[in-house]
Amino acid sequence: MNAPTALDHLVPEIHQREVPPALIDGLKQRFNERCSTALVVREQHGRDESSFDVPPPAAVVFAESTQDVADAVKLAGDYGVPVIPFGVGSSLEGHLLAVQGGISIDVSRMNRVLSINAEDLIVTVQPGVTRKQLNEEIKSTGLFFPIDPGADATIGGMAATRASGTNAVRYGTMRENVLALEVVTASGEIIRTGTRAKKSSAGYDLTRLMVGSEGTLGVITEITVKLYPLPEAVMAATCSFASLSDAVNTTIQIIQLGVPIARCELLDANTIRIVNKHSQLSLREGAMLLMEFHGSPAGVKEQVETVQAIAGEFGGQTFEWAETAEARTRLWTARHNAYFAGVQSRPGCKAITTDTCVPISHLADAILDSVTEAQEAGLPYFLVGHVGDGNFHIGYLIDPDKPEERVLAERLNTQLVHRALKLGGTCTGEHGVGLHKMEFLVAETGAGAVDMMRTIKRALDPKNIMNPGKIFSL
Amino acid sequence: MNAPTALDHLVPEIHQREVPPALIDGLKQRFNERCSTALVVREQHGRDESSFDVPPPAAVVFAESTQDVADAVKLAGDYGVPVIPFGVGSSLEGHLLAVQGGISIDVSRMNRVLSINAEDLIVTVQPGVTRKQLNEEIKSTGLFFPIDPGADATIGGMAATRASGTNAVRYGTMRENVLALEVVTASGEIIRTGTRAKKSSAGYDLTRLMVGSEGTLGVITEITVKLYPLPEAVMAATCSFASLSDAVNTTIQIIQLGVPIARCELLDANTIRIVNKHSQLSLREGAMLLMEFHGSPAGVKEQVETVQAIAGEFGGQTFEWAETAEARTRLWTARHNAYFAGVQSRPGCKAITTDTCVPISHLADAILDSVTEAQEAGLPYFLVGHVGDGNFHIGYLIDPDKPEERVLAERLNTQLVHRALKLGGTCTGEHGVGLHKMEFLVAETGAGAVDMMRTIKRALDPKNIMNPGKIFSL
Repeated sequence: MNAPTALDHLVPEIHQREVPPALIDGLKQRFNERCSTALVVREQHGRDESSFDVPPPAAVVFAESTQDVADAVKLAGDYGVPVIPFGVGSSLEGHLLAVQGGISIDVSRMNRVLSINAEDLIVTVQPGVTRKQLNEEIKSTGLFFPIDPGADATIGGMAATRASGTNAVRYGTMRENVLALEVVTASGEIIRTGTRAKKSSAGYDLTRLMVGSEGTLGVITEITVKLYPLPEAVMAATCSFASLSDAVNTTIQIIQLGVPIARCELLDANTIRIVNKHSQLSLREGAMLLMEFHGSPAGVKEQVETVQAIAGEFGGQTFEWAETAEARTRLWTARHNAYFAGVQSRPGCKAITTDTCVPISHLADAILDSVTEAQEAGLPYFLVGHVGDGNFHIGYLIDPDKPEERVLAERLNTQLVHRALKLGGTCTGEHGVGLHKMEFLVAETGAGAVDMMRTIKRALDPKNIMNPGKIFSL
Repeated sequence: MNAPTALDHLVPEIHQREVPPALIDGLKQRFNERCSTALVVREQHGRDESSFDVPPPAAVVFAESTQDVADAVKLAGDYGVPVIPFGVGSSLEGHLLAVQGGISIDVSRMNRVLSINAEDLIVTVQPGVTRKQLNEEIKSTGLFFPIDPGADATIGGMAATRASGTNAVRYGTMRENVLALEVVTASGEIIRTGTRAKKSSAGYDLTRLMVGSEGTLGVITEITVKLYPLPEAVMAATCSFASLSDAVNTTIQIIQLGVPIARCELLDANTIRIVNKHSQLSLREGAMLLMEFHGSPAGVKEQVETVQAIAGEFGGQTFEWAETAEARTRLWTARHNAYFAGVQSRPGCKAITTDTCVPISHLADAILDSVTEAQEAGLPYFLVGHVGDGNFHIGYLIDPDKPEERVLAERLNTQLVHRALKLGGTCTGEHGVGLHKMEFLVAETGAGAVDMMRTIKRALDPKNIMNPGKIFSL
């Protein structure tokens, strides 16, 4: 291993503001037993899937309605106390941590599907509805909601982080799929953005300003998203390659030819081993693409033939098919569990996960050099990637009791991010900035753009109570 | 005709700020002959395709670089004088009119394609590049830029108004297709938003805040947009129906079935007559869908069969094909010229154009009632629609010398907009708010959301110099 370097700027600054007893009293009076100060509850809301350790919030309010959220925000605002929206706690970037203290607003009980407009291919949900729940509740319509980050995240959290996942290569991300929102602002006002129309030029795109704002501009209390007809035909296949580079170059060609592939995921040999063990599968060990094709039977056949031919040029094996719906579910569940499989492959470890996304022509450069660096560093890792989008994740598996491992992982991450930025990419394809990528954001977009973000934040949240300390320092 | 009603709120307020001679001197010194105060030049920059009459700007600066724009904005800012970006002047909503006086910054000389990344399916252009120019310059790459408002607008103007057009039903609007921007802010600073990566969760989505901001938050000086592989097969067809309602209901089914149709345009019998005359075509008179299908040969065949079957259910005639590329171009040029054909069908008239967009299930209600109202009012009109998106335009053809005709047209427009809003739609699908839909914007999104827009505007442009008086009053 290389000598550790200090990377203090990647450790969150903790400046907890005082939460006056009068606020807690006010919340208890308004919410009764739906406001909890029990340590176990606060601790459960004071952590997420990130590797940071921060004291928990002072209280947790379990909101059951938009008015509950508005009242909690107003009360907190009266005392200048931070509010942090909480769904299921699946953030990877510390979004939920109370780095400036404050209260957590848990919206998981706001979990109703409010209206299904199958004819317009849209649905309106409360923020605590999870993606799996949503797909379960709309099953009978013949439609589905394609966006699927690994975890069974809430739609509210997915909107707040501009999430995507394996289907984004075909169906887009939350950026493209949220049509309208209801939002509680920093002053506790309830506003609406967007309409049910498919497109609009009506004023500033507040919907997309809120999507990806990580709770720093408002609490999302209602989301209208697009749905898609379940494809007539679905085929899922895996294809193994002799090298990572062959798998990546196959992906690049698929995208450049405009094949409307629905999923195109990469795992390296090391990760296949981890996933096989965790999910009791027997995927061939080696670099592998996991793919899915959606369309009419003839359309799917055409896509498969094109992709198999491209893979063949790069020495890819004959596709192995997940023939049944059950086999497909097993395959994609294993893929979605890769993160947890990775973490469990080193007992007691924490994962520091990278999330760069680069223009497709630079994908090979971005992945291969990063993997070489990880291997040379000797730190256990896993590699998964939504490579059809140019997005991949390396999870460095560190022993939290060994600070030098964290430093090493952060150094590798820093190198990887700066490589991606040099290639015209972004530091975060889908996880958000949170606590962990604030420095990278400045390197990526420049001080001018970050200052513009700060100006917007100050204007919309003058007391800086909405999930403060995330995305940028103020 | 019904009795005219006063609709003062739809006539722009004109409060021209003083433009001090010292500013003009400063601009002349910095830009020499590229700063013009000639009346003919100012008048050319003081109008657009809207029907308003407003005094022209005090001067026009012809920018040739981002630095030119930044310097012009800084100089204007020193004197608190408005700046209005100008491309080719094809706005339909008064975006270019100097309602608060000021100077026009003409970016039409910033017309270079800066970089073509065919491998990544993206291109970066200066704001004065027009859509036709762009497609001409990338012809050899096998890629194309699909967004096509009727006019040969600039990419800068299209970004500023969140434009779309006939291909949006398949390829999306500027909202979905702009990846990154360079912007000159109100303080004359140059910032960058977005990256060349396909997706990102890196901070506030400033790109989409600028897209559709109509010059009120900054001047767009560079745009990176997505390109698409030219489809292997393209087929264009027209299909006539006995009634408007049959044509609309066919469209609704096409969309609800998820057919990836590339274009689906509606013209009514009246408009077909106008277009036939203007473009010397012999399209069958009657309600008509103009359609285009993109894909592989087999995929296109499949789409055509599905759509022909749907049309058949609603009594649609057998498709008539535009067989050659030349015939297709003639058909789409005629469609794009429908606006001008409409205006020319009543010599000396001006068009007041509606732009609502509704959820597809309500398209029939929105269109049919509006057409009935127009017919009953007895005002000449034309009807075209990007109906695959739920977006349609009625152009009321008024005699500008007859104020009662303007009042009548505005009354019809107001009824039409409020109907669309009631149906869950938007007052503007693609033209923007400009001067003409400020009241409708409040009705559509609520005072809370418009106040949030105002707060953002005040924070980013404290002197209110960036195209003031558009979208909302301050």
